[in-house]
Amino acid sequence: MASSLRPPKVSMELHVKNREKLIASLRQHLSDSSNPLHGFVLLQGGEEQTRYDTDHLDLFRQESYFAYLFGVKEPGFYGAIDVATGDSFLFAPRLPSEYAVWLGEIKQLSYFKEHYMVSTTSFSDEIGSVLQQHYQGAGKPLLFLLHGLNTDSNNFSKPAEFQGIDKFDKDLATLHPILTECRVIKSKLEIELIQYANDISSEAHIEVMRKTKVGMKEYQLESIFLHHTYMYGGCRHCSYTCICATGENSAVLHYGHAAAPNDKTLEDGDMALFDMGAEYHFYGSDITCSFPINGKFTSDQSLIYNAVLDAHNAVISSMKPGVNWVDMHILAEKIILESLKRGNILLGDVEDMMAARLGAVFMPHGLGHFLGLDTHDPGGYLKEHCSDLQSLERRKEPGLKSLRTTRDLREGMVITVEPGCYFIDALLLPAMNSPKTSKFLNQEVINRYKDFGGVRIESDVLVTAAGCYNMTKCPREIGEIEGVMAGAPWPAKNISC
Amino acid sequence: MASSLRPPKVSMELHVKNREKLIASLRQHLSDSSNPLHGFVLLQGGEEQTRYDTDHLDLFRQESYFAYLFGVKEPGFYGAIDVATGDSFLFAPRLPSEYAVWLGEIKQLSYFKEHYMVSTTSFSDEIGSVLQQHYQGAGKPLLFLLHGLNTDSNNFSKPAEFQGIDKFDKDLATLHPILTECRVIKSKLEIELIQYANDISSEAHIEVMRKTKVGMKEYQLESIFLHHTYMYGGCRHCSYTCICATGENSAVLHYGHAAAPNDKTLEDGDMALFDMGAEYHFYGSDITCSFPINGKFTSDQSLIYNAVLDAHNAVISSMKPGVNWVDMHILAEKIILESLKRGNILLGDVEDMMAARLGAVFMPHGLGHFLGLDTHDPGGYLKEHCSDLQSLERRKEPGLKSLRTTRDLREGMVITVEPGCYFIDALLLPAMNSPKTSKFLNQEVINRYKDFGGVRIESDVLVTAAGCYNMTKCPREIGEIEGVMAGAPWPAKNISC
Repeated sequence: MASSLRPPKVSMELHVKNREKLIASLRQHLSDSSNPLHGFVLLQGGEEQTRYDTDHLDLFRQESYFAYLFGVKEPGFYGAIDVATGDSFLFAPRLPSEYAVWLGEIKQLSYFKEHYMVSTTSFSDEIGSVLQQHYQGAGKPLLFLLHGLNTDSNNFSKPAEFQGIDKFDKDLATLHPILTECRVIKSKLEIELIQYANDISSEAHIEVMRKTKVGMKEYQLESIFLHHTYMYGGCRHCSYTCICATGENSAVLHYGHAAAPNDKTLEDGDMALFDMGAEYHFYGSDITCSFPINGKFTSDQSLIYNAVLDAHNAVISSMKPGVNWVDMHILAEKIILESLKRGNILLGDVEDMMAARLGAVFMPHGLGHFLGLDTHDPGGYLKEHCSDLQSLERRKEPGLKSLRTTRDLREGMVITVEPGCYFIDALLLPAMNSPKTSKFLNQEVINRYKDFGGVRIESDVLVTAAGCYNMTKCPREIGEIEGVMAGAPWPAKNISC
Repeated sequence: MASSLRPPKVSMELHVKNREKLIASLRQHLSDSSNPLHGFVLLQGGEEQTRYDTDHLDLFRQESYFAYLFGVKEPGFYGAIDVATGDSFLFAPRLPSEYAVWLGEIKQLSYFKEHYMVSTTSFSDEIGSVLQQHYQGAGKPLLFLLHGLNTDSNNFSKPAEFQGIDKFDKDLATLHPILTECRVIKSKLEIELIQYANDISSEAHIEVMRKTKVGMKEYQLESIFLHHTYMYGGCRHCSYTCICATGENSAVLHYGHAAAPNDKTLEDGDMALFDMGAEYHFYGSDITCSFPINGKFTSDQSLIYNAVLDAHNAVISSMKPGVNWVDMHILAEKIILESLKRGNILLGDVEDMMAARLGAVFMPHGLGHFLGLDTHDPGGYLKEHCSDLQSLERRKEPGLKSLRTTRDLREGMVITVEPGCYFIDALLLPAMNSPKTSKFLNQEVINRYKDFGGVRIESDVLVTAAGCYNMTKCPREIGEIEGVMAGAPWPAKNISC
């Protein structure tokens, strides 16, 4: 058997509960601010996109807020929830009769009602009339529309638009922070999906490790990962473009895109850094494994690898509700700097290095980010939910400014723990030339690592009431990795949480 | 060895020749219309796209006209050609220094000049000054910009935009038809790439046939195809979303999209219709194989399959320069109707059926389309190059109106030959109820085919000086298919043309 897993059936109850959670939270907010408990949450789902001027259709993937509330895989839908009653509405596109010839069965509205477990289904040209009809308040009905900043992209979500919207009052401020915070704290059913995405992706990472051989191309390992997660896991989408970096490419944090397309030949003595995660029913995973291509760590490789692994493990040991994420980042940095000092790569006092922000030379990215329907799940800088003023804004210091959240951990958050240590010329050369940092750098030893690239170890971690749970099941200890690469069995059991 | 092929090195000479061809054609046009031979062709390449409001980057794929002329895989470029001298210019985005940390080496302009074999490289904020400097004519320099209709999507291409464009005169009419016609007639180097995409995709289709088993999911065969073409063929992109249809799904012409996502379980006795093609260095393939899931054709399946195969073969036997594509469509229809009549599915005179457009009930799509950088390559309805008035506009009749071209064949065209025969309720039921067509339909026999789905056989065919060449190397005869599915070897040799 090529996999111990099989794609689970997904209950749309997941999205019913997401809607209930939103409405409870929204009603609480409206009560607290002495506003009437009526109006409609209205979201517009995604549309299919064609490539440039052609009729080439990109494979559609639903917008994540819409997916959260309605779970609809088809394009062209709208969805609404009545704040007063909690009733849910789906509005389907009215498909032309030719659709049945070219694109498949035109499903009845009743199919969508039953399948997606909503109260009512209508056509999308009926939004105005259906909502007017269901409205129980006075005056113009109020629409809570989605408008807010994504703090990773700096883009704004697009509020729903439809013909006849001028007959409604619009609230663009209330919904986004409340709905985003709902997404930050995962439900049991959401966690099960993220766990499944982790299980199949962990298994695929192990398959990749076992098939890695000198002389292959990086993209061949990408292909093995994609194939394993789709063939056995039913995952048609990945959470993000696979990063299959070897040798010095592993120092390029977001390698693998079209301009750096995983096309290097694997060389003996090089490290691999493979950052790949599959998505299942919209919920993703985000996993990085680092290992030597030839299956045996050198002492130089072990030094860097264990520096990162110690940071990874120390953070996971420390995570629990109330712990601040910036402190975890600093903890990881400190452990890595201490290891590099022990390895004679760095010289001097680690506290002084920390004060000089030397950690950001070796780990310029943040320690981790929320994970869910998006790889960089939103809510990292949600003002309403930060415990102190310091968390309201991005830090300015190197490394810390890259953090995608500065919040305190809460039960139900899923966050990646992904410390890394890289030898990046664009950062090392300036650091060597800066009087503030040059004294710490043992240039002779660092030169030995010139073409090393980097190591990243990334797991997806659920914050629990008492601590946390690592959802990623990959071999992490050097002995485990060398064993798996030499053919030893790996449990990779489907552990549910 | 899992594949007899390996990804070929691509020479950028391909795009040098594409540019030379365009400039020769453009200068001819300008001479013919007594216009001065100066100005610049200017195209804007594609940009990376993020998903909705997030920072999720879709894998970038270059815009096809830009890819044709410059072959650039990176986003954010502009390209220009001096009409007077033929000199070529690439304008690269000026990348911020952080790019080196996150996305990889910031390549020098000289790298792009050498790699893409252009005369000059500059930054994209220098377009205006560089072109002004190279201009040899009088007055404002003229820019030939790309603006024209894609007759498959009904979308218009987007003319280049840059700061300072107001210092140039703009011509939006001349370039599009000339450049499109250049794309219609493939060069030797283009044909080699389309042949390679065909070779690796043909091989992957055979791999899929061999692994098809009752009880699998449709998407597992998609995964096998994608894996084979990427792992062994180096094809990161497909030409289009895989259509992996079995049973009645095979009557859905464009099955496989997000709302009909290849998720049926393969059943004993069903036919499979797999329409899948890989792309290599922008050039694509488009291949359909139809076969019984259990590896043995029933007599009912043989009847429909051979009807389509006879049409496929008859068309290929008839294709040569000067032959009109509408005639080929009609030929395919007629052969299918004759076969269905022989099989007692249809009753009456085939000429009468043709007059009643009965062919379009069983084959509602066009016989085929140009193939190249796009799956539906442009130029199907290019007014300037049609030999007679009839070809200027789409036909109105069922079936014929779906044709993506009505042109006469010319040497160097690559066009798909993809006859099909489907039992589509949405077309059959109206035909049974229409006095014009019901008399031809033997309803009792047709009922036997109610859940049959359909058969399509699609090859990519190059028009040669004397006839044509089938670039697709899949088993087509029933005996060949049954043999390959039972494990017999298949040549699938890398035949160059």
